Amino acid sequence: MKTKRPLIFVTNDDSIKALGIRALIKAVQPYGDIVVVAPEKPMSGKGLSITVESPLRVKPIAEYENVKEYAITGTPVDCVKLGIQKVLERKPDLIVSGINHGSNASVNILYSGTMGAAIEGCILGIPSIGFSLLNYSSNADFSATIPFVRSIIEQTLDKGLPKGVCLNVNIPDESEDDIKGIKFCRQAKGRWSEEFEERLDPRGGKYYWLTGKFIYKDGFSDDDQHALENNYVAAVPVQIDLTAHKELNYFNDWNK
Amino acid sequence: MKTKRPLIFVTNDDSIKALGIRALIKAVQPYGDIVVVAPEKPMSGKGLSITVESPLRVKPIAEYENVKEYAITGTPVDCVKLGIQKVLERKPDLIVSGINHGSNASVNILYSGTMGAAIEGCILGIPSIGFSLLNYSSNADFSATIPFVRSIIEQTLDKGLPKGVCLNVNIPDESEDDIKGIKFCRQAKGRWSEEFEERLDPRGGKYYWLTGKFIYKDGFSDDDQHALENNYVAAVPVQIDLTAHKELNYFNDWNK
Repeated sequence: MKTKRPLIFVTNDDSIKALGIRALIKAVQPYGDIVVVAPEKPMSGKGLSITVESPLRVKPIAEYENVKEYAITGTPVDCVKLGIQKVLERKPDLIVSGINHGSNASVNILYSGTMGAAIEGCILGIPSIGFSLLNYSSNADFSATIPFVRSIIEQTLDKGLPKGVCLNVNIPDESEDDIKGIKFCRQAKGRWSEEFEERLDPRGGKYYWLTGKFIYKDGFSDDDQHALENNYVAAVPVQIDLTAHKELNYFNDWNK
Repeated sequence: MKTKRPLIFVTNDDSIKALGIRALIKAVQPYGDIVVVAPEKPMSGKGLSITVESPLRVKPIAEYENVKEYAITGTPVDCVKLGIQKVLERKPDLIVSGINHGSNASVNILYSGTMGAAIEGCILGIPSIGFSLLNYSSNADFSATIPFVRSIIEQTLDKGLPKGVCLNVNIPDESEDDIKGIKFCRQAKGRWSEEFEERLDPRGGKYYWLTGKFIYKDGFSDDDQHALENNYVAAVPVQIDLTAHKELNYFNDWNK
């Protein structure tokens, strides 16, 4: 029997100042003691990046009600590693990451710092969930996400997640009434195209900004992008074993 | 029938100056026209990190025999994206990344910039392979790796790779005679522990260096860490779909 209140670890990749993490803290506050360890600066697109070439610092930011907040001079994965090993007094019962400003559906999961933190939590054996809203604006309105975030958090605290599995939850940018519910689904096939905008600096030197558009190459009712386009919250169970098990036989006749 | 010589794209995460990429260029030179687009600075542990907060530049470095080299002010994934879209004249037939100074076996694949580049190539539909040597030294001797690197490259150019699959190849730090051959295997379970070294700056402020030791939690004859510990080259077919397909049913009775 659990005697302690759940200890819930909150992080993100848009920085501790982002509206998305403010919404997530508010969403999880009823469920336990909250420790926030999040990047001091924006870390979008950092995936599972870790900081090896410079040291890290922990900065206490705030303490109120049942919440303690710390900023870290590193990536989301650094926050999970350093937070759990040097900030928290015991292993957390749950890690929640986000709410990201922008989609992490389909292959975007692979570049996502939000999901990098959740995947790191999963490697460490802690139930972990990344949440994202399909609105890139720094002023995005997260209010419609709260009931869905809470539903998934309540059920995760109650039932647990399978071993070696975390959740990638993406939420349509719609009103609460227009969101039809939660669908558990698979990662859609897709990729980015036309990704660079070429510019000239004042001295005539070329430089490039990463940009581009997402190409959705899938379109079946069991994929996450399809769920989102049909106004469902898309929840993908994510594993940390990247082995293409079904394809191992392909290499049987290779010279070894 | 292919009428053109293969176009082979070479990148890494240890920077264009590393000995490992020099060994890889030498290894692939017989098989086609070579374009190297690699990070200007070390990018170890960057995973699939992309650069969104600053622009990128391409710097021509060298041109000799059948090789052209460029450095990029970004991550390994930036190199693949920008190289293919703005440097190469046509889509490459093969992407090779490495040879990394240090292991990318087991969960290390998730943090690896070397494998980040290979996974990006795979997303773009190009046969892609990451190579790593189990020696972290910047002065590591890569000579024993060459026959194994070439065997895998020759067979990949000849037979292709399954769609949506790239290869994570790790090579023991042994003499060529002591390496027993190549094993195709799965990603071993493992994690890092005791990851931070705490220090004080001259003003008494705490800071932390990421360090730690790898804990191998697996140990079956079909995993990559086991193959390496038994002096085999370990080749893991890697997929970009992170969905835990087998676990989707677990969520059937969740409220949605």
